[in-house]
Amino acid sequence: MALTADEAIHKRGIDLRIRHEVIHIDRINRAVTARDLTNNKTFYQEYERLVIGTGAHALVPNMPGISLNGVFTLKGYQDGLDLKRFVESSKPRRAVIVGSGYVGVEVTEAFGRLGMEVAVVEALPRVMNIIDEEMSALVAEEMIKNNIRLYTGKKVVGFSGSGKLNKVLLDDGNAIEADVAMISIGVAPNSSLAEDAGLELGERKAIKTSRFQKTSDPHIYAAGDCCTAYHKILKQDVFIPLGLTANRQGRACGENIVAELSGKELQEFPGILGTAITKLFDLEIAKTGIGQSEIERYHLTGIKSVVIKARNLPSYYPGSSDVWVKIYFTEASEVIVGGQVLGSGGSALRLDTIVAAISAGMTLNDLYSLDTAYAPPFAPVWDPLLIAARTGMK
Amino acid sequence: MALTADEAIHKRGIDLRIRHEVIHIDRINRAVTARDLTNNKTFYQEYERLVIGTGAHALVPNMPGISLNGVFTLKGYQDGLDLKRFVESSKPRRAVIVGSGYVGVEVTEAFGRLGMEVAVVEALPRVMNIIDEEMSALVAEEMIKNNIRLYTGKKVVGFSGSGKLNKVLLDDGNAIEADVAMISIGVAPNSSLAEDAGLELGERKAIKTSRFQKTSDPHIYAAGDCCTAYHKILKQDVFIPLGLTANRQGRACGENIVAELSGKELQEFPGILGTAITKLFDLEIAKTGIGQSEIERYHLTGIKSVVIKARNLPSYYPGSSDVWVKIYFTEASEVIVGGQVLGSGGSALRLDTIVAAISAGMTLNDLYSLDTAYAPPFAPVWDPLLIAARTGMK
Repeated sequence: MALTADEAIHKRGIDLRIRHEVIHIDRINRAVTARDLTNNKTFYQEYERLVIGTGAHALVPNMPGISLNGVFTLKGYQDGLDLKRFVESSKPRRAVIVGSGYVGVEVTEAFGRLGMEVAVVEALPRVMNIIDEEMSALVAEEMIKNNIRLYTGKKVVGFSGSGKLNKVLLDDGNAIEADVAMISIGVAPNSSLAEDAGLELGERKAIKTSRFQKTSDPHIYAAGDCCTAYHKILKQDVFIPLGLTANRQGRACGENIVAELSGKELQEFPGILGTAITKLFDLEIAKTGIGQSEIERYHLTGIKSVVIKARNLPSYYPGSSDVWVKIYFTEASEVIVGGQVLGSGGSALRLDTIVAAISAGMTLNDLYSLDTAYAPPFAPVWDPLLIAARTGMK
Repeated sequence: MALTADEAIHKRGIDLRIRHEVIHIDRINRAVTARDLTNNKTFYQEYERLVIGTGAHALVPNMPGISLNGVFTLKGYQDGLDLKRFVESSKPRRAVIVGSGYVGVEVTEAFGRLGMEVAVVEALPRVMNIIDEEMSALVAEEMIKNNIRLYTGKKVVGFSGSGKLNKVLLDDGNAIEADVAMISIGVAPNSSLAEDAGLELGERKAIKTSRFQKTSDPHIYAAGDCCTAYHKILKQDVFIPLGLTANRQGRACGENIVAELSGKELQEFPGILGTAITKLFDLEIAKTGIGQSEIERYHLTGIKSVVIKARNLPSYYPGSSDVWVKIYFTEASEVIVGGQVLGSGGSALRLDTIVAAISAGMTLNDLYSLDTAYAPPFAPVWDPLLIAARTGMK
């Protein structure tokens, strides 16, 4: 008979305590105070090594009507269930998405596919400002093509309705009628427990960790959306909470604690490029490494870019479509430091080849020289990546 | 008004002579003798630099019935037109594919999709022996799933019929009834002109070229399916005639001749990995670098491999399917030297990331450490490439 996940964990001798919350870390005595949320009793638990994996939470602006029925955020599994139940039972017809990052565009598509009238409100002058301006314009185009109404440069200042949501209020005095609103303006790390314990925090108050996933306390590790990760190109610790990073950090914690307690050498977390991918209807959107937003935020200099539009397949082949490739590289030696790929039909998966190129320190010429796969159902003779590299070369 | 390709070329001052054939190269006087095929007149033409781009031809076995109407090969554009016309006018119902390399599987799919009963005859014990044994088994499975009849370990010894094809004869005495047969047992370089001129030939009698695309005569270059290419891992000149290689060599010829005549430095052709990709119905098949067949043919030692089966998308995501990844690496330092990816839904394009990894000299750990793109419509948190790398690591 199959075991539940809980039973399987217990069977391995792991003392798993769900519905428990750690409320204090006593670093001097290497112990935590935890509360059993079922009976509200607290207890004291010593540790040899502690791992903090408290995750992140969706940012919720403090504004009128935020608690109205019909106003949602989406970060954890339970958030997803709550939203799904609401949509199934209340059958909302009009939706407003607040914010147009990865979560925003994904929910925009989901709501659009359910047949809702969807409006996206973005405080910045353009949608998805994680990607570059011309790429962002493609995202806006795809929204419009799919009858999504766009409100850029507008701030949501509140929600109104009696008991349940009826209107989303904008800073220009206008209001958008809505049965459901999704606030997706970003996430913040759950780092207060660590902060209270005096652990060092990093970018955006995420728990600062070393390449070994150690916090500023050598007996405390951290992993996942609550902590920073080393960025291979920026060469600093950043807060870019993403799935693979969290998985990799968790694994690194486990392996390093075992190594440390058995006197073996610790492994360095390899670092990230902030690689992300998403889709909006037929448009696939992928980015890695340095882009316009990183150049602006970190005041980077000496970096150039090239952008091309090509076909993902030979133009005579059925299903051929446009693909846009942008590559960032150092001006001095044309070393690749970032890339963005937008397209359809699976084109965006090409980004992983740019990820490999960046990680290996390849130049534009190295990328151009790759013996990539060619056959009409997959790519033109000259893959869009090669065309982009060639176009960028001096 | 749009120009034809010929008119456009003339307009640029290029003396293009189609329907002309070079019949002799006079290396001493740097001139060719050519025949105008329209009027059969020959003439003498001097050159400063000569480029040989004579391509390759499909191998045609010398056997009874080879000239019967209904027996085809497929290499050039005209071959494709001839076959298309035959299929449209004669409406063949039963097809036999002789050989199961890239061309063989592609025509198998094309004929299968046209509703023909298709049989594939392969002299070797397994189909597509370019790829590894377990991968080849997947190809056989896909054929059987699509009602293709398979005859492995059987040789075709002739074709019979009165005027038009009726039967394909096998070496075991059996015959397969057929209205059309496609012979796809490989290609050979068109190198007799070069051979007659005393130019050095390489693997499989292809014209031997240097990294600058020069033949053994410093005034004669060669490019494309007629010549060898430098293999980055084998570190020798091989005959693997493929589209991107031909394009790249052609460009290298042009650039290097201009550079040479203007006293500039020549560029080295970057070399190939023998990367190839194809599909058979729903199965995508991609290979690069060293595999079982290269290890056998070139007697390579000290190379290990790992093969995994994973899902191309998280298993809960619609359209998720199996993907097989095999990676070859050096035993001593786990440097990646080859890869094969089989799957569906665009999974095989992942091969290009392995191409980048090989070209950059990455180890399994380097590949495993890549910050690849994750989102459910594109990949699981741990991409199949990362799982394969991790599985292969000591």
